[in-house]
Amino acid sequence: MTPYHAPLNDMKFLLRTFSTPAETTNRPSLSSEDAQEILLQAAHFIEQELAPINAEGDRAGCKLEGNNVLLMPKFKQALRAYAQAGWNGLSMPHEWGGQALPEVLAAKIAEMLTSANHAFSMITALSQSACKAIMAFGSEQIKQTYLPPLVTGDWTGTMCMTEAHCGSDLGLIRCAAEAADDGSYRISGSKLFISAGEHDGSDNIVHLVLARIKGAAEGTRGLSLFVVPKFDPVSGERNAVHCIGIEEKMGIHANPTCTMSFEGARGQLIGLANEGIKAMFTMMNEMRLGTALQGVGLSEHAFQKSIAYAKMRRQGQALKKPKAEVKQETAQLLQHPDIRRMLLTQRAFAEGGRALCHYCAQLLEVGEADSDAKREQASLKLGLLTPIAKAFLTETGLESASMAIQVYGGHGYIRETGVEQLYRDGRISTLYEGTTGIQALDLLGRKVLGDQAKTLLQFTKEINQFCSSLIEPQNMQENMQKS
Amino acid sequence: MTPYHAPLNDMKFLLRTFSTPAETTNRPSLSSEDAQEILLQAAHFIEQELAPINAEGDRAGCKLEGNNVLLMPKFKQALRAYAQAGWNGLSMPHEWGGQALPEVLAAKIAEMLTSANHAFSMITALSQSACKAIMAFGSEQIKQTYLPPLVTGDWTGTMCMTEAHCGSDLGLIRCAAEAADDGSYRISGSKLFISAGEHDGSDNIVHLVLARIKGAAEGTRGLSLFVVPKFDPVSGERNAVHCIGIEEKMGIHANPTCTMSFEGARGQLIGLANEGIKAMFTMMNEMRLGTALQGVGLSEHAFQKSIAYAKMRRQGQALKKPKAEVKQETAQLLQHPDIRRMLLTQRAFAEGGRALCHYCAQLLEVGEADSDAKREQASLKLGLLTPIAKAFLTETGLESASMAIQVYGGHGYIRETGVEQLYRDGRISTLYEGTTGIQALDLLGRKVLGDQAKTLLQFTKEINQFCSSLIEPQNMQENMQKS
Repeated sequence: MTPYHAPLNDMKFLLRTFSTPAETTNRPSLSSEDAQEILLQAAHFIEQELAPINAEGDRAGCKLEGNNVLLMPKFKQALRAYAQAGWNGLSMPHEWGGQALPEVLAAKIAEMLTSANHAFSMITALSQSACKAIMAFGSEQIKQTYLPPLVTGDWTGTMCMTEAHCGSDLGLIRCAAEAADDGSYRISGSKLFISAGEHDGSDNIVHLVLARIKGAAEGTRGLSLFVVPKFDPVSGERNAVHCIGIEEKMGIHANPTCTMSFEGARGQLIGLANEGIKAMFTMMNEMRLGTALQGVGLSEHAFQKSIAYAKMRRQGQALKKPKAEVKQETAQLLQHPDIRRMLLTQRAFAEGGRALCHYCAQLLEVGEADSDAKREQASLKLGLLTPIAKAFLTETGLESASMAIQVYGGHGYIRETGVEQLYRDGRISTLYEGTTGIQALDLLGRKVLGDQAKTLLQFTKEINQFCSSLIEPQNMQENMQKS
Repeated sequence: MTPYHAPLNDMKFLLRTFSTPAETTNRPSLSSEDAQEILLQAAHFIEQELAPINAEGDRAGCKLEGNNVLLMPKFKQALRAYAQAGWNGLSMPHEWGGQALPEVLAAKIAEMLTSANHAFSMITALSQSACKAIMAFGSEQIKQTYLPPLVTGDWTGTMCMTEAHCGSDLGLIRCAAEAADDGSYRISGSKLFISAGEHDGSDNIVHLVLARIKGAAEGTRGLSLFVVPKFDPVSGERNAVHCIGIEEKMGIHANPTCTMSFEGARGQLIGLANEGIKAMFTMMNEMRLGTALQGVGLSEHAFQKSIAYAKMRRQGQALKKPKAEVKQETAQLLQHPDIRRMLLTQRAFAEGGRALCHYCAQLLEVGEADSDAKREQASLKLGLLTPIAKAFLTETGLESASMAIQVYGGHGYIRETGVEQLYRDGRISTLYEGTTGIQALDLLGRKVLGDQAKTLLQFTKEINQFCSSLIEPQNMQENMQKS
């Protein structure tokens, strides 16, 4: 099987050529050499520790024993190694133990993770999104309690939204919360499709749960967000939340997809009562950008496997032969036009998608800037681009993975080449965090019609201006530096 | 899981509306009532016997014990039941024990088979193609020996082309044949990806093997076709051909994909020496039309599962509500425009594809007609349509299956709903019997440029004439009856 190699050249190109202007970010500045060194170390860790256990994880899956979920032992070790090396807190604030490194850098590493091992990357990505939601909406006490171990990666987080009867339509949620005398809540109900809802790879699991406080309104207006730990952070007591089933799935077998039963589990409110959907969407938008990166990672890995095979495999005659070649030799697959078409498409999806995600990561950072106007503008633009990046890059990721199967021919259908696993694992990406159809509704309903296309028109104007400027070749360099 | 139901209404519509004119076929005439009764019985058998074991076959797979391959016991039983009920010889000549029924009818039943159980249908489809090749090129002795038990289905057949280093480029075949004193040959070499190459579901397995007689030319011009039985049809002696491995695959788990080792196995030449590729292509064209039907079957089953779920599942609000409805009720998925778009696309692929395959099956029959001119014309048109039907209908089949996953959302990614199996099983269809890219080469290189687009232009002219005639609505009925 062709090993995965992080596409460092293209990543460095983006970081170098489209750097985030210092005045738009609150993050500490990072030298270009340091950024490259971090990328290199990340690539080393991911290529050595995570890529090699990807196929094994697909075969081994997870085991449910009673209410305990056992990860493949090598996955557990990799999770610990990942946390110990400090990768989890890369872009998190210093305040909570993170390294406050640029989002554009974190995005590259997130792409590598998902490229090399989709099932693994989902655990860490969800944890990071849980951190962001707690940071944005949690009380000081909740932040102090949960953020440090989540940021190191000693604890992991989940997002508990879906129920058996309710997927995209969160308004149907039945999970109930009852206020206790001590200000906490008792959560009851069951949640479906909870990624890494239960596993033995971290010391504690922090569930962010959408539930309805007794007596609250129907629909999404009555939903609140709760933090529900597996173990009480102070007493260490086991909470009444258990995994009662794991799913047999098309792929991502090494990542347990759990049905979670909350039986009066103790939880705390995050943010205001009945404003849970707002807090959850902070997490959701984060996850959607992460899922877009999964699409890029999929295109990249599919391209790498395809081009390696297309160079190695010889089949048929080339239409055009090199001048020096006299004898009709069997051609590399690479010499066939339809194979080239597929390889170039995969590469365009990977590199173009990476650039779009780079731009989104910059907007994420600018969103933290001091200037209200800049923050507002960046946030609107990111809002517009999030459903586009999520839908387009996951759909093109699947197209790339499917092309990889075509490039391999019959061999692409066989487990050992690893390309069919890429497709099976990646197939989840157009479903979770809102299907492609849901992204379309978000884009048109909220992001375009929501402000009478103001943001869209502003963005297309910028694109047009950028393109016009390129008509004069001498402007190109200048423009790239400005943007 | 939604059970499969044969789409009898659309099948009957095609058989009734576009019947094959009696003067163009040599087959015995069949009353419309008889045809419908046969369809009904086939549907009954397939819905009751084959559809219910499809998911179980996916989980159970096949077992290799030594050189023996064990099918899932229920698959073995189903194979016997299928043969005993006489379905295998449906369109085969009376002479060999078949029922000589119309190809258009056989095509409908082939679609049902693959819709209900792709892994099962591949065993019977390959056997039927082997029969066609033996009928067309075998000596009288070979026909007498092999056809009767192949036609009943007591024996099954395989097609042995691919080798480890050689897929689409058959010219690279290394499998060797050495003439023995008794006029037979000894075949040596190994073959890869042989569907049902070894299994315990039939009394004998008849391999049709492409190999090169010692001293023959390089490339495809030096290939000959041999019939190599697992057991000698006269002595019952075990032949030196063995399964040395089965593949772990993305899907069709219940169908063993075998690596076959020929160790001086005894075989007989079919057709002329060094003209094996011609005989093999008789079989291959047959298989390509069969694969096109797999695409239709996939679209149909994906549509059925999707519409059943879209009616049952309630999620979100409908954009347009029925006038009488006052309270905002949760909508069926079916009421959402993007879901309707997917369902209508799947249905168009299934019904349009079925009509195209119906037309191809008619051309197959007309190809047996007495008139040389008619035969020639039908054969050219079928040659043009075969790569189109194979490539287009398998690609659209996959698109339909993928849409089914989208319609189900996260539930589509879970094994128990059965839609992800549809995709995994169907994914082989754009790979085997020539990838989509190979079909494109065949279409443009051989079928279009091969006769300076004469057949293509003739066909598009017919299409245009048919469409023009429809401008006058009163002509439509008349035209349908004529065509």
